[in-house]
Amino acid sequence: MLRAGVDLGGTKIQVVISDPLNRVLGAFRRPTPRTGGPPAVTEAIAAAIRQAAADGRVDLADVTGIGVGAPGHIDAQAGTVANAGNLPDWMITYPLSRELSARLRLPVALGNDVQVAVNAEVRLGAGRPYHSMIGVFCGTGVGGGVVIDDELWLGRGAAGELGHICVQTEGGAPCPCGRRGCMEAYAGRAAMEIQARRWRALGKPTQLFDIMAARQRERLTSGVWYRAMKRKDPMAKKLLKRAVWALGSAIGSTVNALDVEAVIIGGGLGLRLGQPFVDSIRDAMIPHLVAPQNPPAVLLAELGDLGGAIGAALLVTERRSDP
Amino acid sequence: MLRAGVDLGGTKIQVVISDPLNRVLGAFRRPTPRTGGPPAVTEAIAAAIRQAAADGRVDLADVTGIGVGAPGHIDAQAGTVANAGNLPDWMITYPLSRELSARLRLPVALGNDVQVAVNAEVRLGAGRPYHSMIGVFCGTGVGGGVVIDDELWLGRGAAGELGHICVQTEGGAPCPCGRRGCMEAYAGRAAMEIQARRWRALGKPTQLFDIMAARQRERLTSGVWYRAMKRKDPMAKKLLKRAVWALGSAIGSTVNALDVEAVIIGGGLGLRLGQPFVDSIRDAMIPHLVAPQNPPAVLLAELGDLGGAIGAALLVTERRSDP
Repeated sequence: MLRAGVDLGGTKIQVVISDPLNRVLGAFRRPTPRTGGPPAVTEAIAAAIRQAAADGRVDLADVTGIGVGAPGHIDAQAGTVANAGNLPDWMITYPLSRELSARLRLPVALGNDVQVAVNAEVRLGAGRPYHSMIGVFCGTGVGGGVVIDDELWLGRGAAGELGHICVQTEGGAPCPCGRRGCMEAYAGRAAMEIQARRWRALGKPTQLFDIMAARQRERLTSGVWYRAMKRKDPMAKKLLKRAVWALGSAIGSTVNALDVEAVIIGGGLGLRLGQPFVDSIRDAMIPHLVAPQNPPAVLLAELGDLGGAIGAALLVTERRSDP
Repeated sequence: MLRAGVDLGGTKIQVVISDPLNRVLGAFRRPTPRTGGPPAVTEAIAAAIRQAAADGRVDLADVTGIGVGAPGHIDAQAGTVANAGNLPDWMITYPLSRELSARLRLPVALGNDVQVAVNAEVRLGAGRPYHSMIGVFCGTGVGGGVVIDDELWLGRGAAGELGHICVQTEGGAPCPCGRRGCMEAYAGRAAMEIQARRWRALGKPTQLFDIMAARQRERLTSGVWYRAMKRKDPMAKKLLKRAVWALGSAIGSTVNALDVEAVIIGGGLGLRLGQPFVDSIRDAMIPHLVAPQNPPAVLLAELGDLGGAIGAALLVTERRSDP
């Protein structure tokens, strides 16, 4: 009863092989292919699963299924991924379940990347003591998940878009989604980088791009932000202050609506900035609460970088019990 | 199996007597006493229940219980109402259940005024076709309710505060709650009146206060706003445009988080302004949606002014089935 879990992202593919107690027996990580479109990505996933099995000295014949957490629009029933703007040439509807299943002769279950990561925290991570919570995952964008009575609430399929809570309706910053004033317009790495490049072009001082170059990155990764903060870079400080301001407002509003027991902060940026970031979000949230004397617990995600893949592996068992 | 339902508000007490099919057999409405504090209000409720029974030619001996929807902090278990700023001299914790029960020798169940009104719409009104929805009730303030899988979601007891979703985090309007930028700061009648008085003091033209005086009101009631809108009063138009702007943003954000099937607009102001108000809120909401091609239904509450009392009567049966 081993399972493979795949966290499919725009920059990397992370695979784990987990046992029935959700212990990670093997893991493998590789960059997402930038060319070749969905077939190349599918082939890379299959190869990464074989590598993860080898890493854990596991026979693939002992793996009963594969779970994949993917970005874009997921149709779990149909087994398709569509409109995944972060993946190369993936605006089409691609039958990932069928294609991956054909390569490894194993059943494949699909889920939304952020939702499976939140579910992993609920079942196995920081969310274990709680029955209601929200997950806020800060990465390139800001994804989320809402947990009600121990279950992810999906609504009509699209719930959890906490990054697109509008925190500044008039005169808000532009969001990668095309709207203005969304929390993600302040707290998503993509939006933060656009603002940083704009300010740099205006001659404002920052080490952000020197750190990026020194680390041979093309983007302001979470690691770049972390290092800039350690060096007390003024632009990084200012942009992260804006991010925390927006996160505090959006999370406070959501808590006013749902009065959940806990808020879990994760995602690449959240994990990299860690507990001080979580504490500052909590401090920014409290003034927005109708009941500030009874705030929810605000916690850092526990499962780290493997959380998405571990959560994807859970899809194998949880989907099986579906009607 | 008849029940009495009481909608206890800052300006009026509305009582209904309802039968097991939730038909209203009798009703009575009276102003909330402004003096005498909680005991006077309790006495007035008891008298209003007797009057409603008389109105329906119902023997009080056939009534099995009383449900009360009240503002402020409700402890349903303890049967107390506290911090009800809209009620006269009611900042204390008052044992309303026990005191009302002693007067009529009937069991009393308490609930939050907005939550019971939303529940009535869910069970008996506009919400019947849906399993997930939010209710947004615009009155003196803006109350709300969240319905997940056919049940009101109460969180840790304080969920549904949709009026305190922050729509303008920087430079937002002052809200009666003491914070800034809450949706209620734009869409609650109390906040709208404060703004109207400020603008009038600055000499901006409006008929709002003439209409108020002609109708012998001391406040800008929902009826005053309705009449001013019919006369195309510029200040009323401007303030209601702001209200719709804030409602569209806060409701859009909540739909992005929860992806509910429906949004129900009620409350004194919502009911008075009716379908055109609902339509304009829908139009203001759609640009905020992550999935604008699949918006929720936005509907006017169906049960009208009696909804709160009808919902309060439901407390009698629903609480009985609690563990």
